[in-house]
Amino acid sequence: MCRWLAYSGSPILLDSLIFKPKHSLIDQSLHARLGPHTTNGDGFGIGWYGSGEQPALFKGVDPIWNDRNLRELASEICAGVIFAHIRASTGTPVQQTNCHPFRHGKWLWMHNGQIAGFQQVKRELVMAIDPALYPFIEGSSDTETFFFLALSLGLADDPPGAVERAVAVIEQACGDQGIEHPVRMSLAVSDGRTIWAFRYSTTGDPPSLYYSTRIDTLREQYPDVPVFRTLSEESRLVVSEPLGDLDGAWNEVPPSHYGIIQPGQDELHAFSPPH
Amino acid sequence: MCRWLAYSGSPILLDSLIFKPKHSLIDQSLHARLGPHTTNGDGFGIGWYGSGEQPALFKGVDPIWNDRNLRELASEICAGVIFAHIRASTGTPVQQTNCHPFRHGKWLWMHNGQIAGFQQVKRELVMAIDPALYPFIEGSSDTETFFFLALSLGLADDPPGAVERAVAVIEQACGDQGIEHPVRMSLAVSDGRTIWAFRYSTTGDPPSLYYSTRIDTLREQYPDVPVFRTLSEESRLVVSEPLGDLDGAWNEVPPSHYGIIQPGQDELHAFSPPH
Amino acid sequence: MCRWLAYSGSPILLDSLIFKPKHSLIDQSLHARLGPHTTNGDGFGIGWYGSGEQPALFKGVDPIWNDRNLRELASEICAGVIFAHIRASTGTPVQQTNCHPFRHGKWLWMHNGQIAGFQQVKRELVMAIDPALYPFIEGSSDTETFFFLALSLGLADDPPGAVERAVAVIEQACGDQGIEHPVRMSLAVSDGRTIWAFRYSTTGDPPSLYYSTRIDTLREQYPDVPVFRTLSEESRLVVSEPLGDLDGAWNEVPPSHYGIIQPGQDELHAFSPPH
Amino acid sequence: MCRWLAYSGSPILLDSLIFKPKHSLIDQSLHARLGPHTTNGDGFGIGWYGSGEQPALFKGVDPIWNDRNLRELASEICAGVIFAHIRASTGTPVQQTNCHPFRHGKWLWMHNGQIAGFQQVKRELVMAIDPALYPFIEGSSDTETFFFLALSLGLADDPPGAVERAVAVIEQACGDQGIEHPVRMSLAVSDGRTIWAFRYSTTGDPPSLYYSTRIDTLREQYPDVPVFRTLSEESRLVVSEPLGDLDGAWNEVPPSHYGIIQPGQDELHAFSPPH
Repeated sequence: MCRWLAYSGSPILLDSLIFKPKHSLIDQSLHARLGPHTTNGDGFGIGWYGSGEQPALFKGVDPIWNDRNLRELASEICAGVIFAHIRASTGTPVQQTNCHPFRHGKWLWMHNGQIAGFQQVKRELVMAIDPALYPFIEGSSDTETFFFLALSLGLADDPPGAVERAVAVIEQACGDQGIEHPVRMSLAVSDGRTIWAFRYSTTGDPPSLYYSTRIDTLREQYPDVPVFRTLSEESRLVVSEPLGDLDGAWNEVPPSHYGIIQPGQDELHAFSPPH
Repeated sequence: MCRWLAYSGSPILLDSLIFKPKHSLIDQSLHARLGPHTTNGDGFGIGWYGSGEQPALFKGVDPIWNDRNLRELASEICAGVIFAHIRASTGTPVQQTNCHPFRHGKWLWMHNGQIAGFQQVKRELVMAIDPALYPFIEGSSDTETFFFLALSLGLADDPPGAVERAVAVIEQACGDQGIEHPVRMSLAVSDGRTIWAFRYSTTGDPPSLYYSTRIDTLREQYPDVPVFRTLSEESRLVVSEPLGDLDGAWNEVPPSHYGIIQPGQDELHAFSPPH
Repeated sequence: MCRWLAYSGSPILLDSLIFKPKHSLIDQSLHARLGPHTTNGDGFGIGWYGSGEQPALFKGVDPIWNDRNLRELASEICAGVIFAHIRASTGTPVQQTNCHPFRHGKWLWMHNGQIAGFQQVKRELVMAIDPALYPFIEGSSDTETFFFLALSLGLADDPPGAVERAVAVIEQACGDQGIEHPVRMSLAVSDGRTIWAFRYSTTGDPPSLYYSTRIDTLREQYPDVPVFRTLSEESRLVVSEPLGDLDGAWNEVPPSHYGIIQPGQDELHAFSPPH
Repeated sequence: MCRWLAYSGSPILLDSLIFKPKHSLIDQSLHARLGPHTTNGDGFGIGWYGSGEQPALFKGVDPIWNDRNLRELASEICAGVIFAHIRASTGTPVQQTNCHPFRHGKWLWMHNGQIAGFQQVKRELVMAIDPALYPFIEGSSDTETFFFLALSLGLADDPPGAVERAVAVIEQACGDQGIEHPVRMSLAVSDGRTIWAFRYSTTGDPPSLYYSTRIDTLREQYPDVPVFRTLSEESRLVVSEPLGDLDGAWNEVPPSHYGIIQPGQDELHAFSPPH
């Protein structure tokens, strides 16, 4: 079912984010606590906004706990907006083109969850994608289809609205096929400046999602923790599972809500796909 | 541009077919002589009709010359109909789901060549595929799209006719986009009993294709070559490049023709996609 | 910490052994119950005595639960002596040359456990290997070193004695370095006719190991289970973890013992490395 | 037989070095001109001195022409000392632990050539390695053995002397086994500040090796080539094959010589292993 984390703030080394925490993504790849799969070993991907025009990607089909190149790069790559994802496939092949995050232009997209009965609705959903975008689809995953649907429905102008409209299209298509519980998602999207993080499911419990407490609050609560003094107050993490045990450091994103992490005040809003 | 071989006849070990010949597929993966690429290191695939209901597949994304598992299996797998393919990608990603041969039910399909301007016509071609078949598409290659198009156009009932109709659809779609030289192909298809091998291109020279001389003829010409005595008279090879230098052992398939390898008399016919 | 199974008996498909059981090796790769690691995703290997002079091997560095080629081969490969192993690395790199089973001539060898402090004693142990065997060492694992040590100490003539002597050498070398708990092992060795299975640790609990009850007994106890009627009475499994829940089907190998699975009567003996 | 390049100078993007040149390493992986192998598809490796205490490595077992992660990183990694290598195996397995460059502490080492009859002398050479260094050996290649031998013989204090002494040890061991033409090498070593590049073979022609002309000379000769104005005068490349066709840009390293690329004046010296 996957696990992910999204970071925005002071430039930090991948190492601090991916390897150092107590319940890091590496730990979650073997011992996830809050999802149906303890193991997330079907590949991984890191995306970061670096020196190029578009974000850079590093993906592997091997389990993240084994990837030596990632360990090397973790001490070399430093960025202010970072996406990291570990995959537990919901059926589509394990190949680099099915690893998250997905990229189109300056946009990054990653997901935990699934489109239920995807094979039955895939053709309809793919056909709803803007023909001009169709050639950019490389893989076969539900997540990538979802991404290109959102791009077709105005992601570049209004990410929350586009994601709501995309979910509506998916729910409609699944409904037509009698597929129950069509959408489960925790989702992160970024253009390199802002991160939108969504938590939603058509019915029942959506996948877990947490955001970190404001840095200035954490600094007061924990004056002896050095990292809270070095990180800027803009710094924020959104995660499938808390990376550590510090009381008060993590806050659940309510179901059917999305957060906006941006310069200045971050926001939390209701997420309401049209029905 | 790929190289392939198809075999039908007495059951033989993969080893005899893939590793032993003088100019084997292994040699062709490094030193192909008759195509634009000397190197065909973008993965490989073997298909054979064994004990199961459908043919079995063994595919790798590593260069065939490095695959140790294949060397092991080559001494263990014995079959009477074998497809083997080495890939030089024409643009789509190197991943197992893009390696040939492709399989659907009892059908195997492999290809050397390309659909020119594929990204421009892909959506149209994929949409022309029978919606009931759409969920079986796993990869992103032009070859796989071509296969499913042929399946949609009656491959199961009339392979040559279906391939002709599929080529016509492709040429039409490319023509609408102003794409020149749309189709270049040497193609092999089998249902486990018969092999159809095609050589065609819309314009210009199609990829090379040869078939082996009848075994009884070779037995007379070369009474000292042991293998000609052990192979049945039904035994036939179709190859991108001759596997050896024996005079009179290899015959060019004429452009715009296809061969049928079957129990009893094999046949050669004109290949004429409707325009 | 790895999991493995060894089978001897009526020729069966790999599929029956590796994929079909309720708590199969595939299940154990994600949800092992009796070892310190629930996940064993650091590669896998299958060895079987087929048509060649030496046993054949199929190994992968990907998690066994993802390997599509293995699923294909499982329906094609049939043998009377089969070794299957899934790996959780104890430190050495994840690469095919470190996957079990290891092979030398007609011998297969696989292991669950470790040589503690291996990097400190490796040079000494490797130097104790017969120089004529040294060039055959391909990887860097403790298991492979253990194997070649046993080969050097007479495995071909007296497997239990050679394993005892090898353990003694390892315990001596570790003792000299002050390494505690030097050897933990469940181990399987075969020459294609006999399987020797060992369970031992220098101190404390050795890794789990079970052998299946005699087929004639199981046939009486469970007259409605079809497989007990089709398997020969010689058929026997030795496993890290029981493959299913049937009462009375599995028996623990006592610590510091080894079993011999052979035509006719199987045996159980004390395992006593000289001190 | 491998191809490599070593760069020292103004910090540049990997992309400029590895992808952009006319006859880049990518081109050489498919169409090498000056070695016995046109294809060098048995893995690759990049090492660079970045922000960490030791140089960083990125290695792959896939052919360099297919590696998508490398293309991504090429636009992100910038360094002043870079080693890049593409491999054509001389017999040892294709695995990450056999890819160059090799690293120990601050040292990088890569090689084109071979130790002839390596399997016959390997044990002797490995035993000559300092026992304290033995645990750091990860792979099975002749190049890595050569590296650790040189480390054992004083590489940290006197690289040219240590390499000479290591070659002498290898030639002696091979001579004892009646192995002719024991050593062929073009070799690069660096500590992050200096690069030593060697060209030598016991008998006959050593592998090709070239160094770039001084930047100030190239700037005068080619005032219209922009890169000669942006690179510092310290900038220097050493390559198996020239990366382009510019007259006067490339100079052959004479056989049995080594170059020192360092701040200030670079040097060229005779390379004379003691006999």
